[in-house]
Amino acid sequence: MKKYTYQLFALLGSALMLSSCGNQNGNSSSGALNSSNAEKVYVAPGEHDEFYAFMSGGYSGNLTVYGLPSGRMFKEIPVFSQFPTSGYGYSEETKPMLETSHGFVPWDDSHHPDISQTNGELDGRWIFINGNNTPRIARISLTTFETEEIIEVPNSAGNHSSSFVTENTEYVVAGTRFSVPIPQRDMPINEYKGNFQGALSFISVDPEHGHMDIKFQIIMPGFNYDLSHPGRGKSHGWFFFTTYNTEEANSLQEVNSSQNDKDFIAAINWKMVEEYVNNGGGKKVPANYAHNLYDESTHTATSTMKKEVLTVNPLDVPGAVFFLPTPKSPHGCDVDPSGEYIIGNGKLSADLTVHSFDNMIAAIEGKKFDGEAYGIPILKFEDVLAGVVKSGGLGPLHTEFDGKGNAYTTFFISSEVVKWKLGTWEVIDRKPTYYSVGHLMIPGGNSRKPFGKYVVALNKITKDRYLPVGPEMEHSAQIYDISGEKMELLYDFPTHGEPHYAAGIPAELLAPKSKKIYRLDENKHPYAVLTPDQARVERKGNEVHIYMSTIRSHFTPDNIEGVKVGDKVYFHITNHEQDFDVPHGFAMIGQNTSELLIMPGQTKSSVWEPKKPGVWPFYCTDFCSALHQEMQGYVRVSPADSNIELSWSLGED
Amino acid sequence: MKKYTYQLFALLGSALMLSSCGNQNGNSSSGALNSSNAEKVYVAPGEHDEFYAFMSGGYSGNLTVYGLPSGRMFKEIPVFSQFPTSGYGYSEETKPMLETSHGFVPWDDSHHPDISQTNGELDGRWIFINGNNTPRIARISLTTFETEEIIEVPNSAGNHSSSFVTENTEYVVAGTRFSVPIPQRDMPINEYKGNFQGALSFISVDPEHGHMDIKFQIIMPGFNYDLSHPGRGKSHGWFFFTTYNTEEANSLQEVNSSQNDKDFIAAINWKMVEEYVNNGGGKKVPANYAHNLYDESTHTATSTMKKEVLTVNPLDVPGAVFFLPTPKSPHGCDVDPSGEYIIGNGKLSADLTVHSFDNMIAAIEGKKFDGEAYGIPILKFEDVLAGVVKSGGLGPLHTEFDGKGNAYTTFFISSEVVKWKLGTWEVIDRKPTYYSVGHLMIPGGNSRKPFGKYVVALNKITKDRYLPVGPEMEHSAQIYDISGEKMELLYDFPTHGEPHYAAGIPAELLAPKSKKIYRLDENKHPYAVLTPDQARVERKGNEVHIYMSTIRSHFTPDNIEGVKVGDKVYFHITNHEQDFDVPHGFAMIGQNTSELLIMPGQTKSSVWEPKKPGVWPFYCTDFCSALHQEMQGYVRVSPADSNIELSWSLGED
Repeated sequence: MKKYTYQLFALLGSALMLSSCGNQNGNSSSGALNSSNAEKVYVAPGEHDEFYAFMSGGYSGNLTVYGLPSGRMFKEIPVFSQFPTSGYGYSEETKPMLETSHGFVPWDDSHHPDISQTNGELDGRWIFINGNNTPRIARISLTTFETEEIIEVPNSAGNHSSSFVTENTEYVVAGTRFSVPIPQRDMPINEYKGNFQGALSFISVDPEHGHMDIKFQIIMPGFNYDLSHPGRGKSHGWFFFTTYNTEEANSLQEVNSSQNDKDFIAAINWKMVEEYVNNGGGKKVPANYAHNLYDESTHTATSTMKKEVLTVNPLDVPGAVFFLPTPKSPHGCDVDPSGEYIIGNGKLSADLTVHSFDNMIAAIEGKKFDGEAYGIPILKFEDVLAGVVKSGGLGPLHTEFDGKGNAYTTFFISSEVVKWKLGTWEVIDRKPTYYSVGHLMIPGGNSRKPFGKYVVALNKITKDRYLPVGPEMEHSAQIYDISGEKMELLYDFPTHGEPHYAAGIPAELLAPKSKKIYRLDENKHPYAVLTPDQARVERKGNEVHIYMSTIRSHFTPDNIEGVKVGDKVYFHITNHEQDFDVPHGFAMIGQNTSELLIMPGQTKSSVWEPKKPGVWPFYCTDFCSALHQEMQGYVRVSPADSNIELSWSLGED
Repeated sequence: MKKYTYQLFALLGSALMLSSCGNQNGNSSSGALNSSNAEKVYVAPGEHDEFYAFMSGGYSGNLTVYGLPSGRMFKEIPVFSQFPTSGYGYSEETKPMLETSHGFVPWDDSHHPDISQTNGELDGRWIFINGNNTPRIARISLTTFETEEIIEVPNSAGNHSSSFVTENTEYVVAGTRFSVPIPQRDMPINEYKGNFQGALSFISVDPEHGHMDIKFQIIMPGFNYDLSHPGRGKSHGWFFFTTYNTEEANSLQEVNSSQNDKDFIAAINWKMVEEYVNNGGGKKVPANYAHNLYDESTHTATSTMKKEVLTVNPLDVPGAVFFLPTPKSPHGCDVDPSGEYIIGNGKLSADLTVHSFDNMIAAIEGKKFDGEAYGIPILKFEDVLAGVVKSGGLGPLHTEFDGKGNAYTTFFISSEVVKWKLGTWEVIDRKPTYYSVGHLMIPGGNSRKPFGKYVVALNKITKDRYLPVGPEMEHSAQIYDISGEKMELLYDFPTHGEPHYAAGIPAELLAPKSKKIYRLDENKHPYAVLTPDQARVERKGNEVHIYMSTIRSHFTPDNIEGVKVGDKVYFHITNHEQDFDVPHGFAMIGQNTSELLIMPGQTKSSVWEPKKPGVWPFYCTDFCSALHQEMQGYVRVSPADSNIELSWSLGED
C-alpha cells in the first residue's frame, strides 16, 4: 500500500512536470500587443524603475535587489554567505557576521524577506530574511543596503516558516521546519514521534535601532512548520503557521508525511504569550546561539554567544494556541489585508481553504473543539471555514493580495497564477507560468496596503525560457500587469540564486533616504587613517599592521619593506573619497582571502601571510579614474631570519 | 615640479569626473523613439536573445553570461572565486581548482574573456579568461558552461594583458602587468629600474581537448604591460602589447609613470619564437605553478604543481621583438579585422594612434630603428604610423570593429563612444555614455568576422542610472544599435561584479550544442552511486562516507545513525535525475562549508564535522517537485565515546 502511494506520487510528479513544460512559448499576445508590453517594462536610459523588489537568493544565501517593471538586478547583498566580490565574510570586519554555535558557517539558504512595517504598512526601514539551514534571522538596513545583524535561532532546524514581521515590527517571527529533540541530544531517530518538538520563536525588534533579541520560543508538537504570516488589522496580535507531517514520520517523508487528509494551521495569540512572559512566565533553558552585530560607525562586526533562551509550553498559556484543520499538507499561509481571511494552500489539494478570523474567535469563545493534539485544542474545520476556492488548479502554494479585494494564488503543478475574489471565492482569471511557479509577489502584498499594479511569479523550472547555458540554469521570474480585470504577462527575467519569496516596495519610499557615502569624519574604525599623514606601518611581534589610505589614484604608503616570511600582515585601508560611487578595491597577489571593496569613508582590513621572499605587488581592483592602472604598490618580503627593519614610502612627495 | 604634476592630475581627475556626471539623463530620444527602442531590446516571453555576451566579473572573479539585446543575466559561472551558490571551491571535487603556488586562493580579479577561434573566426568551443591578481588563465567549456581548467602563470604579477587567443587558438596569451624580480627574490624595491622584468607567456592550447601548457615566456624589460591583441589575417603570427611605465618608476606611479611623452607597443613575432624554442632554444628555469584540471566524466578536479618553465630572452631571437613608439601611456591595444591596423589608445592623449602592420614590416626589413631599449629595437614612430584619429575626446581606452570598415573607441574621461572610419580616420559619430566607459564589445569584435549589430559600453561609474541601493552600486552597461550610420542608445542594464571586457557570439553558434544533463551511465566519479541499492554508509577510522542517491523527492539513505562527534563525515551525493533542469541541492545544518548543487547525472561531495551530539536534519535546497518540502533526512550524532554502530534506512520500502 505504501509502495503504491509512493509510485503514484512519483508518476504524478513526472507527468505533471512534463505537462507543465509542453507549451514552450508563454506569449499568447499578438505582435501588436508585444510592442505594448515592451513599452510597459522598458525603463528608458536615465529613467528609474517604479518599484524595488527584494528577492531572496535561496541557495545563494543572499538577497538580491531588482527594479520593477524592468526586471534588472541592481545589487546582490551578501547576508549569510561569503561574498568574494566585496570581501564579506573574508574581511576581518565581516568574518564575525558568519559565526554560529557550530563555528564559522560560510553559507545558508535564504528564503523569505519581509520589510519592516508601521501600522501594518511598509515603512522601509529594514528588511529581514531567514537562514533556513543553520537557523538564523538577518536584518538588513534599507539606507545602506548592508546586513547589520544576524541572530541564530536555537532549538530550530530548517528555519523555514520565517522571517515575517508583525504589523508594527514588534517581532520578526521564525518557525522551525524540522522538529528535533529539544534540547538537542543523542537519541534514536525512530523515536521521533512524541519526542521531537518544533520551536516557534518570537524575536523582538528594537523600534529605534532595530536590534533583535529572542523574546520567547513556543515549544510545539513535533510537526513540520512550513510557512507563516502575521494577523493584521483586527487579527493583529495573532500569528498563523501552516504545519505538515502531523503524521510525525521520520523516513520517506514524501509518502509518510502525506497520509493525513488534513493537517493544521496553528494560530498563536502572541500578545497573550507576551503578557504571560512579561509577568514572569516561561522557562529559561540553556541554549548556545550567536548574535552578530555590524556597527556602521566602526564598520566592524562583533559576534557574541548567548547562553539561554526563554521557552514557553503552550499548555501553560490556555487560550493562546489553537489548531485549525486545513486540507492536506498546506504550504503557504497567507492573511489578507483586512486581517479577516487566513488562506491555507493545501499543496496536495486542488482547493484553497480560506479560514475566517471572526469565525475562529467565535469558535474559541464558544469552546467548540474537535479534540486536541498534545493538549492543544483543535477547532472544527466547518466552524472556522470562510470559504473554499474551487480553483481547478493543482498544487496551490502561495497567495498575495492586490488591495482591491482580489487574491492571486500560485499553482506549482498546473503552472499558473489564479486570480480570485475575496468573499465570493469566484475565479476571475488564470494565466500560465513558465514553469512551476513557487511564491509570487505583489509589492506590499503582505501588509495592510498592497500596491496592486504588478505581480511577479517566481518560477522553479526554467528549461527553455532563455538561451541555454549548460545543465545549470538560473531560475526565472515573470511579471504580469494586474491593473486590469485580467492579468497580462509582460516579461520573463532570470533571477540570481533561487528566489523563494520576495518583498516589493514603491521606489519613492526608499530612494530618497538611500545613503551615498560614509562620512569620513564619522569613521570610528579603530584602525582608520583619517588623514594620509597618519598612514604608517607597525610591527607587533610577528604581526605587521599597515595603516593605509587610498584616494584617486594612489595608496599611501605604496612601497613597504621589512615584512618577513612568517609574518601575519594586516592591511587596514581607509578610502578617503567622499564622492558617491568611488569605491577603491585592494588585492595582494597570492592572498589566501578575497579582495577588499572599500566604500568612500569606510575602513576594511585583510590579512596576508606571505609564504615566499620577493617583491610582491598590490593594486586597486575597482577602475576608479583615468590613472587607475597606475594605482599600485609593492611589499618587499624578506626571509624569516632577515634583519631588515620596517620602512615605507608615503608616495606623496 | 612633481608635486605640481600630481595636483594637476588630481584636479583633472575630479573636474572631468564631475563634468562626466553633469547630464543625468542619457536619453536624448523623443517619446516616440523610446517606444521603438523598447521594442528593439524587448525579447518577448518564449523568445530568445540574438547574442550571448560573456562578461568578465572583474572583482567577482567570475564570468557572467548575458543575452543581447535584452541585457538579462543568464548565469554566473564561477571561475577563480568560491561560489557558495553551487559549492564551487567548497565541494571536495572543486577545491583543487583554486589551488596555487601560494596555497588555496579563494578569489581573483577576472578581466578579459576571449572565445576560441578557428581561421580567425569565433568557433564557440571554449572561452578563456585571466585571473589578474594571482596570475592565472582559465578555460571554460561552452557546452557545459563550467570551468574546466586553470593554469597559474609564474614570473607574472597583475596578469592583465591577457587572455587573448591567436587566430587558430594555437595560444592563449598572458602578459604581466607589473614587473617583478625574475626569479622572485628579496631585493630593495627602489632597485626596480633595470632589475625588475616582465614576462609575456604563450600558453599552448591542445586543439582536441583544449588543455593548456605554458609553451614559453618572453622575459621583457621592466615596464608595465597593459593590454594585448593578436595579429590576424596577414599579421597572424604576431602579437601586440601596450606598455606603460617605461619610466620604470616604483612609487607614486600616477605621476612617475606618466612622464614620458611616448611609451611603446611591443610587437612579438611569436611564430619566430615558437620556431626558436621548437629547435631547442630558450632556458628552462625553476618555477612553481599550479595546473588544475576538471574532468567532466569523473566530475572531479585535480591540481598538479609544475616545477619549471621555458623562458626566452628576446635578444636571443633577433627579429622577433620590436617596440613601436605610441603616445603617452597607451591602454587598449586593438587590431582590426584585416590585421593591418594596430590601434594604441594613449589614455592621457586626445588622439588615437593607428599603426600599420605593412609599414611595420617595411621598417623592420629596412632596419630603420630609432635606438633600442634594453637591446630591443625601437622603430620610428613616423615609419609605422598609419594615421591619427583626431577624436576630440579625452582618455581613449579601447577600440572594437563592426566588420564594415568602422571602428568604435571608448573615451573614459569624456564619457563617450566615438565611431570613426578605418583608413580615412574621420570621425563619423559620437554618443555619450553614462558614465566613464571602459571597454566596449561588439560580438566577434576581436576576430576577422565581427557581427556589427550592437555595441555594448561597459561603464565604470553608475551613480544615478538606477534606483539607489546604498553606497555600493553595480556597474552599468549600455547597448547601442550600430546597424545604421549613427549609433543609437537603446538601453541601460546593470552588470554583476565589474565587467572589464566582454566577448559576444551569435546564439546560433552556441545554443544547439549546449549540454542539458550529464549522463548517469557515463558518470565515472569514484564515489558515485549509480543505482539506489548501492547507497550505503561506511566507516574508515574516524571518516564516515555516506554514498547517497537523490531523485524526486527523497534521499537514499534518509536516516543515518552511528555518526560520532569528532568524525569527518563525507556526503557523496549522486543526482539520479536525467531530465533537463532538475538539480537537487544538499545542505546539512551547521555545516562549515557551502551547500552542494548537483546537476542531473552528477556526483558531488561535501565534508561535515559534527560538533555536538543530537539528531540533525539535512534537506534538498533546490525546489524540485511538489514534494520538495518532504525531501529531507536525519543524521544521529552520538558522543565520541559512543559504541553505536553505523546503520541507515534506505527509505525505499
